[in-house]
Amino acid sequence: MINKLIAKIQKTNAPIVVGLDPMMKYVPQWIQDKAFAEYGETLEGAAEAIWQYNKGIVDAIYDLVPAVKPQIAMYEQFGIPGLIAFKKTVDYCKEKELVVIGDIKRGDIGSTSEAYAVGHLGKVSVGSNSFYGFDEDFVTVNPYLGSDGVTPFTKVCKEEGKGIFVLVKTSNPSSGEFQDRALDGRPLYELVGEKVKEWGADCMPGEGNYSYVGAVVGATYPEQGKILRELMPNTFILVPGYGAQGGKGADLVHFFNEDGLGAIINSSRGIIAAYQQEKYARFGEQAYAEASRAAVIDMREDIAQALQK
Amino acid sequence: MINKLIAKIQKTNAPIVVGLDPMMKYVPQWIQDKAFAEYGETLEGAAEAIWQYNKGIVDAIYDLVPAVKPQIAMYEQFGIPGLIAFKKTVDYCKEKELVVIGDIKRGDIGSTSEAYAVGHLGKVSVGSNSFYGFDEDFVTVNPYLGSDGVTPFTKVCKEEGKGIFVLVKTSNPSSGEFQDRALDGRPLYELVGEKVKEWGADCMPGEGNYSYVGAVVGATYPEQGKILRELMPNTFILVPGYGAQGGKGADLVHFFNEDGLGAIINSSRGIIAAYQQEKYARFGEQAYAEASRAAVIDMREDIAQALQK
Repeated sequence: MINKLIAKIQKTNAPIVVGLDPMMKYVPQWIQDKAFAEYGETLEGAAEAIWQYNKGIVDAIYDLVPAVKPQIAMYEQFGIPGLIAFKKTVDYCKEKELVVIGDIKRGDIGSTSEAYAVGHLGKVSVGSNSFYGFDEDFVTVNPYLGSDGVTPFTKVCKEEGKGIFVLVKTSNPSSGEFQDRALDGRPLYELVGEKVKEWGADCMPGEGNYSYVGAVVGATYPEQGKILRELMPNTFILVPGYGAQGGKGADLVHFFNEDGLGAIINSSRGIIAAYQQEKYARFGEQAYAEASRAAVIDMREDIAQALQK
Repeated sequence: MINKLIAKIQKTNAPIVVGLDPMMKYVPQWIQDKAFAEYGETLEGAAEAIWQYNKGIVDAIYDLVPAVKPQIAMYEQFGIPGLIAFKKTVDYCKEKELVVIGDIKRGDIGSTSEAYAVGHLGKVSVGSNSFYGFDEDFVTVNPYLGSDGVTPFTKVCKEEGKGIFVLVKTSNPSSGEFQDRALDGRPLYELVGEKVKEWGADCMPGEGNYSYVGAVVGATYPEQGKILRELMPNTFILVPGYGAQGGKGADLVHFFNEDGLGAIINSSRGIIAAYQQEKYARFGEQAYAEASRAAVIDMREDIAQALQK
């Protein structure tokens, strides 16, 4: 799946992943009204609204980008109906040939991580049958529990040809509280980065240069990005925090390798709620999805310019 | 909710939480057969089997223990039907007046943690209505992202009278990989423990001595438990790893305060799959739930003896 992701990045010329994080305040009123008319102001109504909203965006951008990253929390907050909308979104994006990165940030002790891995990337056995639960292509994983929380995911990835991105240095303001603390003389994020390299060492499929054990490093921390890029040369980096969280195109250069690969930049709000920005206000609520398309094209240009320099 | 938990611990004289982590290999064949006869060997069949299995155990133990801790991964692996079984389990346990600790180990950047907090502990707004998603009493939280990943949970706890347990030192073999590394001269778990204390400082409801921001510290690491107990005197500690993972009654003493409170010990497999142990084999598959009851009584005795010393 890492090689499919790379091939799609090269084909679209866009190292971009669109974060499908549908907060209700982003969903145009007309979509909400329609969903509530059918299902009432209920969890089912909310789930229908975010699903229709997602579908509009996916239809408008699927030919431009290699991947999407639905953030499961934004669905999980609406309980079971929300998770059904998550699953519909995953399935629809895969139909559209998009690589789907489930942003689930799971991680637990061994047998429990195995259950998450099976549920999100692999197949679960039921009697003599087996079934995919959520069936994303990649998921994000929290490393706090150490190797035995991570290796159940890599095992399932190997069986299924899928991948993970392990949190190394997150994009949020307080990420440094633990991640930047010097551990035996080096910051924690570097030690986690080294482990990611180690976990990925046997996970290089085919002729590719990149392992299917990737890392998450926030665009908001370009200096750390530079260090981690050098530390983990064969690790693909998922970079959140571009746009609304403050990361700029120029900050992204050091996340890439000399081959122009090695990173994929996420934007969520900046794309999916583009119509709410002054820059794209001309599209209006009705054409929110075209505003998202315009924002993707602008982001692609911003990154291309930064990489040219 | 922390005070309700404490009152129930005192009433039952059992600082015990039963982990409802229903792996299929624990579910008696007759329950599986019945569920598969009705729903086929499908995700729905598996979900029905784990729900009926849970219900049997809860009916047999609800008067003995203050709390249960369903591990969501064991449900999530069966996709949407599994999560419906999780929700049914949560609701049923609450009907039985058990305190429900959702072992979800979520944690993300601010706005995303807020969505998890709302979905698992609080209410989500839909138009002019609001709804509980999963509605556990407590959830477990991963601290890797720092304060802005945790405080959205404490905010919802304050509004709803609920609580969290933050991972500090987990029970698994490789937990030391990052958690034990010396950060600026002190192990990471101590720094996380200090933050837990800080996050909980304003979270002491009523006349109680304990905050509703608790900590997870594995029974498998009694020395670290002793240090953390002293470091966080007002923090309730959720202690996994007793029984099947290797923790013994004698290891637990230092997790408790002088008042005999301050800790609640989890056992999962050791209780719910007791009938598979030689010690309880006399109950047989049919009476698996009575085996669980016997195992709870033995565990209560083991802990009481350890605390007497």
